[in-house]
Amino acid sequence: MDINNNKMLQAVTWDDEQQAVILLDQRALPDAERYIICSSVEQAANAIENMTVRGAPAIGIAAAYGIALAAVNAERLEIEISANQDYKLKIINQAFDRLAKTRPTAVNLFTALERMKACLERSKNNLKLSNILLEEAKLIHSEDIANNKRMGELGAELLPDDAVILTHCNAGAIATGGHGTALGVLRSARDAGKKIKVYADETRPLFQGARLTAWELARDNFDVTLITDSMAAALMKSKKIDAVIVGADRIAKNGDTANKIGTYGLSVIAKAHGVPFYIAAPFTTLDFKAETGADIPIEERSESEMRILINNQHVPDSVKVWNPAFDVTPHENITAIITERGVFFPPFKF
Amino acid sequence: MDINNNKMLQAVTWDDEQQAVILLDQRALPDAERYIICSSVEQAANAIENMTVRGAPAIGIAAAYGIALAAVNAERLEIEISANQDYKLKIINQAFDRLAKTRPTAVNLFTALERMKACLERSKNNLKLSNILLEEAKLIHSEDIANNKRMGELGAELLPDDAVILTHCNAGAIATGGHGTALGVLRSARDAGKKIKVYADETRPLFQGARLTAWELARDNFDVTLITDSMAAALMKSKKIDAVIVGADRIAKNGDTANKIGTYGLSVIAKAHGVPFYIAAPFTTLDFKAETGADIPIEERSESEMRILINNQHVPDSVKVWNPAFDVTPHENITAIITERGVFFPPFKF
Repeated sequence: MDINNNKMLQAVTWDDEQQAVILLDQRALPDAERYIICSSVEQAANAIENMTVRGAPAIGIAAAYGIALAAVNAERLEIEISANQDYKLKIINQAFDRLAKTRPTAVNLFTALERMKACLERSKNNLKLSNILLEEAKLIHSEDIANNKRMGELGAELLPDDAVILTHCNAGAIATGGHGTALGVLRSARDAGKKIKVYADETRPLFQGARLTAWELARDNFDVTLITDSMAAALMKSKKIDAVIVGADRIAKNGDTANKIGTYGLSVIAKAHGVPFYIAAPFTTLDFKAETGADIPIEERSESEMRILINNQHVPDSVKVWNPAFDVTPHENITAIITERGVFFPPFKF
Repeated sequence: MDINNNKMLQAVTWDDEQQAVILLDQRALPDAERYIICSSVEQAANAIENMTVRGAPAIGIAAAYGIALAAVNAERLEIEISANQDYKLKIINQAFDRLAKTRPTAVNLFTALERMKACLERSKNNLKLSNILLEEAKLIHSEDIANNKRMGELGAELLPDDAVILTHCNAGAIATGGHGTALGVLRSARDAGKKIKVYADETRPLFQGARLTAWELARDNFDVTLITDSMAAALMKSKKIDAVIVGADRIAKNGDTANKIGTYGLSVIAKAHGVPFYIAAPFTTLDFKAETGADIPIEERSESEMRILINNQHVPDSVKVWNPAFDVTPHENITAIITERGVFFPPFKF
């Protein structure tokens, strides 16, 4: 799998020459396609927090490369100040702690860090830790792309020809290692010869639908139409919508799914209109420690994301703001969960 | 009723000295509280189209004053070019045509114009038409405030003490002659000694909830919290919400109600959570010529309202945009319709 294929949009890459993590700055899209070079763990952690890189699988990959970066930098210190193996391990372990504190909801972050930790545990006496950890991070990355392609094929079978699909937030190539989860299903359906028309919710407050999904799909020559989040019900009532497909940040054992705020409301609206509601996510999004959605922590983000409107208009300080980044869609609202290991239907047994 | 009470927010007033319609420029709120002077019918019509003045009842009042303005200007011409009565009537009738073409959905616009037309018909031989039409417009305005206060009292009885209310768009003082419809109910409930906490949907694409409702309620010392439209379902699931109250642009004979886009989705979500869903609107919002919501014309507005995001970011031209300004809430999703003539419950018979 060539993870540096230039034709494929890449949210996260490792640059061997600069020995750094390169991130597509998703805050600047669609106006500018610019990249941020992270040569320290702190830079990578900040980039996850401020959503330079976002999307549950992409966050996991960025964190994995962040651990490799810690090893690279520790080995630089080894040369400069003759740091010993224990000191290097201490630096790498600090990186685990820092990266784990960036965002609470997407489980892929923690899954990726656990896998890197297990790799470190196996190799802790090896003096070239950076090589080993970088190989593991690259494997996490390439496996994610392969998983997306597999779940794309499986999900594509659920869609009719001439399908009209509504999606929320961005579960595309740039939310993952490549290809995408929900948008990967649409890509695979088109590759299989199906005609696909897409409606994208703009996804307030950060406009991931308007800025990222609409842009990503238009760039890939999809027929894509933007709506505000509030138009979804009117859309389902007045036009033919064959399915809603979204990604996931964490899935509980019973199928309850945390995803970008607004997903739950969309599932209620889809159910009321008899529209199938699909989740597409890698199997690592499943959190077997969470019995139900109530066990999933929901991040609340800065009020400033909602206080500043268009044309520099501001919401007055005397108005409070509630800004949860995610919500939980109960399993009874979900038609199927599409993973690379198969499509799961209710009652969900993974 | 003092319609120039400075303490009451006034979306529309008539200025006797300048012989002009004064409109609060609602596009500039909440950053600036500035007023637009309309001394021609074309200026008033443009102000309705570009939403300097908005809200179904306020549009009706602005249009009524617009007709008075046409008479004032026609009488100026009478002096300048010795125009005769027929010529004056022709100018006033042109104003009716122009104002009727501004916005299609809010029925109050047409109701107000019809009432002004009947007044003109009764008085067409009177040489001081401007006095008569201005008196009628002022009556429409003061009756609207009185109606809002009456429906506020009636609606307030539906709310418990310590009520937590969700509202959409702005059905406040500045959407009407004063006091407000949905927000008028909240004001009356507070006046009756009830404690009221409000959540306001931001209401994309023009942010009437964030810019107008949140600002209007905070200015009036209400406890108000802003959410994005997409958060309503998560809000109802995670916090106590006693009722949703919204205004209306047109109500069909069977109770189907056209209101700002997003209202319909909110009604589906409220129903799924067992939350009462109230419409507050003057009786003139009822369109007895519309059997059901399918007979209500829905305005589609400029794509540019959705193409320009925050920080000057733009949605690419290759992405299409769907921008309906209103949607229809079917009567079966409505708990009650609050008017100044009484509170109507299903099955709706007006």
